[in-house]
Amino acid sequence: MKKDRISNNVIRRLPRYLRKLDELTAAGVTRLSSLELGKQLGFTPSQIRQDFNCFGEFGQQGYGYHIPSLRDQIASILGMDRGYRAVLVGVGHVGRALMENFCFQDQGFDLLRAFDIDPELVGKTFGGVKVSSMDDLPAFLQKNPVDIAVLTVSKDAALLVTEMLTKSGITAIWNFTNVELTGPESNLIVENVHFSDSLLALSYFISDAKDSKEAE
Amino acid sequence: MKKDRISNNVIRRLPRYLRKLDELTAAGVTRLSSLELGKQLGFTPSQIRQDFNCFGEFGQQGYGYHIPSLRDQIASILGMDRGYRAVLVGVGHVGRALMENFCFQDQGFDLLRAFDIDPELVGKTFGGVKVSSMDDLPAFLQKNPVDIAVLTVSKDAALLVTEMLTKSGITAIWNFTNVELTGPESNLIVENVHFSDSLLALSYFISDAKDSKEAE
Repeated sequence: MKKDRISNNVIRRLPRYLRKLDELTAAGVTRLSSLELGKQLGFTPSQIRQDFNCFGEFGQQGYGYHIPSLRDQIASILGMDRGYRAVLVGVGHVGRALMENFCFQDQGFDLLRAFDIDPELVGKTFGGVKVSSMDDLPAFLQKNPVDIAVLTVSKDAALLVTEMLTKSGITAIWNFTNVELTGPESNLIVENVHFSDSLLALSYFISDAKDSKEAE
Repeated sequence: MKKDRISNNVIRRLPRYLRKLDELTAAGVTRLSSLELGKQLGFTPSQIRQDFNCFGEFGQQGYGYHIPSLRDQIASILGMDRGYRAVLVGVGHVGRALMENFCFQDQGFDLLRAFDIDPELVGKTFGGVKVSSMDDLPAFLQKNPVDIAVLTVSKDAALLVTEMLTKSGITAIWNFTNVELTGPESNLIVENVHFSDSLLALSYFISDAKDSKEAE
């Protein structure tokens, strides 16, 4: 598979393509042109062709894209078929929301266990996932190969827990703490969820709509 | 201010620029070249100059960018100085997490009130924000001009509540429900928070790191 020089922008668009392809599959669509796909996603057809070309040849000139195979190939590029395993650390509101409502399995992830320091939470099960004590985390990670840690602890605990996780061999973190976890030298892979980025984009779109209305 | 043809990609990068500029301001940095700014953000200097040029002239050739004014200008472009007002609907785990931990004020938003159907929650206060009954929502919106609704209800309630909100004059929704709220004809401004997009990007980065290691 051709995987050189894929820009961050393309990678960020892939999950969006995937959602659209899932939607189309659910609606029974099996073949679509880049023109139509672009229309539905708000991209130009050439943008779509360019994006998919980063990874190899997906479409067939004049026939459009075969939706189910395109879907499977994008899922595979995203690593969804690799059976990644996760633990969650910090069973507060965000942690509970993810355990109860977020379908890790649909993204190809297996959420094995959650951890918290609160003795009231230890032993409980949320969304089918058991909560263990933080004290048991290093032993658990030694016994079970885990690919990512979902970090949903409070801000003040973020760096300490990250240190503990990396010492136990964790190399990737899905970070909900809003704390910068790594220096420039670090090999830790961190994906930050910044709610504020999304709210500020919304703020821009509202402002833009208001300004356009006033200019009319 | 020049605001034509700003691509979605540029808009999405602005909150990231803002975070970096806040960080630099906190560190006492007042002036920085596009070269250095690009290095810290992982962008090329020409990308940065191009982005900022969309909105007008920010930098001064040879002097770099004045960080505090650049910060203020980006904040203003994002509408952070417009005093937007918000309500939150659905005080579940995600709702509680936002009320207690997310600083709306820092993004220029005033979260006036939360609403829920659960009588056990009504009258309580989380993060300084009072919870009222859903029954009181239409009257509240009639009395108080509100710019956005934060939608943190369950999936099954999403469309019904959206209808109720739009009927009450809400034109913008920050949507955490993972439910597609609008058809193509709608004027409602919706910003979706898709946790899965972020996890799948992480999944890609882990896969890429593993593949590179194996190829060594």
